[in-house]
Amino acid sequence: MAPLGIDEIRAGVDRNLTDFVADRSKSLHEIDPHLAPVAEAIGEYVLAGGKRFRPIFAYLGYLGAGGLPNEGVLQACSALELVHVCALIHDDLMDGSDSRRNLPSIHKRFEALHESAGYQGSQARFGASAAILLGDLALSWSDQLLNQAELSDQARARCLPIFYSMREELMAGQYLDVLAGAIGKSDRERALKVATLKSGRYSIERPLHFGAALANSNPELDQIYSAFGLPLGQAFQLRDDLLGVFGDPAVTGKPAGDDIREGKRTVLIALTLERASTAEQAEINACLGDEHLSLAQVERVRAIIEKSGARHETEEIIAARFQDASLAIEAGRFSPEIATAFSKMALMATKRSS
Amino acid sequence: MAPLGIDEIRAGVDRNLTDFVADRSKSLHEIDPHLAPVAEAIGEYVLAGGKRFRPIFAYLGYLGAGGLPNEGVLQACSALELVHVCALIHDDLMDGSDSRRNLPSIHKRFEALHESAGYQGSQARFGASAAILLGDLALSWSDQLLNQAELSDQARARCLPIFYSMREELMAGQYLDVLAGAIGKSDRERALKVATLKSGRYSIERPLHFGAALANSNPELDQIYSAFGLPLGQAFQLRDDLLGVFGDPAVTGKPAGDDIREGKRTVLIALTLERASTAEQAEINACLGDEHLSLAQVERVRAIIEKSGARHETEEIIAARFQDASLAIEAGRFSPEIATAFSKMALMATKRSS
Repeated sequence: MAPLGIDEIRAGVDRNLTDFVADRSKSLHEIDPHLAPVAEAIGEYVLAGGKRFRPIFAYLGYLGAGGLPNEGVLQACSALELVHVCALIHDDLMDGSDSRRNLPSIHKRFEALHESAGYQGSQARFGASAAILLGDLALSWSDQLLNQAELSDQARARCLPIFYSMREELMAGQYLDVLAGAIGKSDRERALKVATLKSGRYSIERPLHFGAALANSNPELDQIYSAFGLPLGQAFQLRDDLLGVFGDPAVTGKPAGDDIREGKRTVLIALTLERASTAEQAEINACLGDEHLSLAQVERVRAIIEKSGARHETEEIIAARFQDASLAIEAGRFSPEIATAFSKMALMATKRSS
Repeated sequence: MAPLGIDEIRAGVDRNLTDFVADRSKSLHEIDPHLAPVAEAIGEYVLAGGKRFRPIFAYLGYLGAGGLPNEGVLQACSALELVHVCALIHDDLMDGSDSRRNLPSIHKRFEALHESAGYQGSQARFGASAAILLGDLALSWSDQLLNQAELSDQARARCLPIFYSMREELMAGQYLDVLAGAIGKSDRERALKVATLKSGRYSIERPLHFGAALANSNPELDQIYSAFGLPLGQAFQLRDDLLGVFGDPAVTGKPAGDDIREGKRTVLIALTLERASTAEQAEINACLGDEHLSLAQVERVRAIIEKSGARHETEEIIAARFQDASLAIEAGRFSPEIATAFSKMALMATKRSS
């Protein structure tokens, strides 16, 4: 089963998630019919077509470590997507983002339910409560799916500590991201560290290690995966930063300039502030975190970033990190099929438009 | 190690939690020194002296199933407390509760940090984000602690599905509780179902099953534990309902009449509305969910509940459920030590003042 092609792996991940979510939805319906909107919302959200980067990197990490195609391993890798679903649901709530994957974010969806059903009390509180609980459910489900995966006891024992570290680093990185916004200063090194923790390690390096652990224990390969995954993870996050400011809402599924509105202290912003005039710095700092930012203001921030050369420099850093990652693939002496798959994923992670 | 006495079990649970939290705090400090307030807050919260009902019921469930005192099992049972910590942190945020265990709730604590540190942006948003992430961390840690426990592969395989069901039912119950407040109707049967899901099964029956699974597989004992745990869990929740209205803030660690302010549609409220005059019903409905409720209004609601006889009836239901649970213990033919421990726990769950 489950061959090497990225599309096939993605289809396998989707199949595993579809089956699992159908099972859990059935369980929720059995607990109480009033849980139908919960099952429906989380089901649509999981299946609405994420890129499945983390499960795919994990499965490729397993294959690259010499693992043979295996359905249980694919199932275990699919569990990473449910961690990500929790992170997205809670992140959108924390950031006050209205949409995700071209759907309303979960808190917005339940605010709308509150309105259409004519419920009492605060819409916002109801939406927030639902988003908190649905995120918790997705997080708990990630353990359940991983536990259901047919794995050898050894493989399970090897991958679980990585799974837990990954989640801890993710939550730590999210907190540091929120904190950076609250501290309200921009510093290139600090922004890169938060980007690395919040997304770099979590999105690529840790999934590779997780996959490798499902195959065997190989410290040398873990180092190669770090040399590949860390720079690629940073490039991935820098691309995200660029899309958060310059992305096309029709493609990203998020409003234009969302990162500015949310006051994110990204590397892109740090680079801009290093190079901008005092007046421009003041302008950027005033716009960052302004929830009622107009499209004209977004355009103005974009222009300052562009003019400062920070956009260009960010593209250069992405290209350099991509180059580092590509060299690591070469140094890894993977089979041509695996090397090609890694290269394709590296391209997708850094050249994407959503 | 770990003898039968409840105090010894509680001390063992505390020791396991202390060691685990110390390890995790160290890990957070290594990730980034800026995470110190996170490690400190979650550490104090976990160790601030919860009643440890769930771990104790689980460990007694294990002993009652014939298990011998075992440190790994005690560690596994301690993991249930971390699920509870997540539930409390997120619950306080959803309810807007300011205090818990005589400490500020987590979102309030981080709002205060935001103020004292002179951070930018919304205090409330910063506090809410921290509470979401710390709850997520506690939930993820519950899996990690359970995984670290030294258990046989068979014991692990038996207890994990119960662990996952317990968490799913908890989150489902929490949603149904929020929903009941939003629907804003009171109905005795419905309120009892939500109470059973949200707390009854989660607090007692499931921990007993979890503990039993750590010893062996015994469907007959599971039935006895259900006959003991379900009525006791309902009585536990009804006591909570009474404390949420009539409890002494100095003892409960929560403000007076907190449940009324939060608009909780408890069994107590359903019984009151069944019996109250139309004018009194209107008065209660107006007070439920009013965040700015005065102490005088709380007193007024208390007087209506008292006069209606609903407080008395709730006490009667608690006594009857306690009686059912006691009969189930007798029918279980446990050793005198185990039967005594179960009886003590049943008393603590239903006669408590905090």
